[in-house]
Amino acid sequence: MIAWEANIRRVVPYVPGDQPKGDRLVKLNTNENPYPPAPGVRKALLEMDYDRLRKYPDPIASDLVDVLAEYYGLGSDQVFVGVGSDDVIAMSFLTFFNSAKPILFPDVSYSFYKVWADLFRIPFETPALDAAFRICPEDYFKENGGIIFPNPNAPTGLYLPLDQVEAIIRRNPDVIVIVDEAYIDFGGTSALKLIETYDNLLVVQTFSKSRSMAGLRIGFAMGNPQLIKALNDVKYSYNSYTMNMPSLVLGKEAVKDDTYFKETLKKIIDTRERSKKRLRELGFTFPDSMSNFIFASHKTVPAAEIFEALRKEQIYVRYFKQPRLDDSLRISIGTEEEMNVLFGFLEHYLAERA
Amino acid sequence: MIAWEANIRRVVPYVPGDQPKGDRLVKLNTNENPYPPAPGVRKALLEMDYDRLRKYPDPIASDLVDVLAEYYGLGSDQVFVGVGSDDVIAMSFLTFFNSAKPILFPDVSYSFYKVWADLFRIPFETPALDAAFRICPEDYFKENGGIIFPNPNAPTGLYLPLDQVEAIIRRNPDVIVIVDEAYIDFGGTSALKLIETYDNLLVVQTFSKSRSMAGLRIGFAMGNPQLIKALNDVKYSYNSYTMNMPSLVLGKEAVKDDTYFKETLKKIIDTRERSKKRLRELGFTFPDSMSNFIFASHKTVPAAEIFEALRKEQIYVRYFKQPRLDDSLRISIGTEEEMNVLFGFLEHYLAERA
Repeated sequence: MIAWEANIRRVVPYVPGDQPKGDRLVKLNTNENPYPPAPGVRKALLEMDYDRLRKYPDPIASDLVDVLAEYYGLGSDQVFVGVGSDDVIAMSFLTFFNSAKPILFPDVSYSFYKVWADLFRIPFETPALDAAFRICPEDYFKENGGIIFPNPNAPTGLYLPLDQVEAIIRRNPDVIVIVDEAYIDFGGTSALKLIETYDNLLVVQTFSKSRSMAGLRIGFAMGNPQLIKALNDVKYSYNSYTMNMPSLVLGKEAVKDDTYFKETLKKIIDTRERSKKRLRELGFTFPDSMSNFIFASHKTVPAAEIFEALRKEQIYVRYFKQPRLDDSLRISIGTEEEMNVLFGFLEHYLAERA
Repeated sequence: MIAWEANIRRVVPYVPGDQPKGDRLVKLNTNENPYPPAPGVRKALLEMDYDRLRKYPDPIASDLVDVLAEYYGLGSDQVFVGVGSDDVIAMSFLTFFNSAKPILFPDVSYSFYKVWADLFRIPFETPALDAAFRICPEDYFKENGGIIFPNPNAPTGLYLPLDQVEAIIRRNPDVIVIVDEAYIDFGGTSALKLIETYDNLLVVQTFSKSRSMAGLRIGFAMGNPQLIKALNDVKYSYNSYTMNMPSLVLGKEAVKDDTYFKETLKKIIDTRERSKKRLRELGFTFPDSMSNFIFASHKTVPAAEIFEALRKEQIYVRYFKQPRLDDSLRISIGTEEEMNVLFGFLEHYLAERA
């Protein structure tokens, strides 16, 4: 072995999901929003001051932070922005999870939590979801170094009612509890209102799903000013300029157009509810999703087989080949047209299989 | 103290430099390029597919990686891209500097090295530059956990000849040596040609200075495929999608327009050489800069006084209030017109002070 190899950080690299290319495909595999960003974003893109690209962006990202603070009724010192919620959460792990005690997150959950814990050498335990894929709050009532869970959970789509979220936060005043609300805009109630009551709560959200901006990479955290300052201290110790100029300019416009935001959400929620009905008719079962995807299992046909059949038709959904998950498909909610292509094929395919 | 405070990572936060706002100011304080990005960047910005913002960007950033590989005559597995060279170097610290032995970097150097070492709890030693601000290669011929230095160095602008760079790399086969070439395009010879000979060498460059794109945040590392894979493994364990869609699309265009790139470099180098002459006439001394800034000290007037006088005129340069640096000003090379405003004022001001 070469000597320097001994000093390389060893990690189990996360493998990003398929990003198939082509125009005719139906892409329901990465929980992207099927509708474009707000019209104001298009306008800002066309009017963007090209010469400004030569200058460093605002390190404080104040335009974006301020518009988020105003939208959510917070002070600007209660909002932190990063390069997608992945950057925000990774930085939160580095900032807040420095105890020798294990942090806690559900065994079935966003797969990156384990990857970040591994990267930063943070001990962790993963309490199991119950048989119906529910988080059991009492599993988090024991000594720990910090807690994180998505709400709604991924890849199940299940929403944990706010009183149960609050119970977890209240029972853990000595550690930071991060509620990862990537999908909260699709019907759940945010824990945001609890940050005035609990100084140990950090709420993380993203522009990638509900705000149609996965391509811009914007995530944000909200919490008490002390937590936000600690995050900024670590951020300024890593990279002063994480948010580039286009993301600051376009992100701001996305927040300003609340009418478009709410209309888009309503369309996706309506399509989701119709999709639930169609899936049930087709013989699928699933936890009741409050997100922009449905985690569905067929009563008779194995998920792996449906996944392959769909892929041959250029219809992409997500399949997780791992215990507890390998009998389900995670199907993102697309446009009505995209869902009709999916259901049209499934109807045909499942009838032939019967 | 609140219990969770004990688990917060304590860092000495880096304070980003002044980003003064206004149209009439002369901004020579952050080493930005005074010329806009390549014309192809403007075209790509206007033609950018707005709907694509809703989708995740390519996690492999292959368009940008490929165009850089082609430009520098490398394989695509020899190039890593990140959110500015700060992101690239921070990730390199996390990836490669995991020895119990101290890493080495010059005492007068890019101030972020110390901040990253602090953030990731990496022990370090800082060999002193000599009285003429030169790096002494033999200071790096001792046991260590890794080496990093800028070439040309910051904030001195001094270039270390390639044979001396090579001596440092050759004498340290057991550790990774990072040559931070943020300013190399302004006249020095890159260590890039050495990566085929030395598997322990990583060369880092940036789009922020020579390519007029500080606002987009693009940096890159070049090295042997094993080093690049290790960096990607850590990157994929942190955030799969660090590079947003605009930076991938616009970055690629910047690399493609080599004629504009070389013309812009020539203009800046010409202005720098004229500026050296003017500064000498005005009574300044300085190390001979091969970068896009000059680190100048006046023979009779203290730097702090000149700095304040310039600031009152809305002419911004950089002043470091720390030992060895506090008698100099770091003056970025602007346009001819900007430099004339600076020299016009200095001529008047210094004559009055005499």
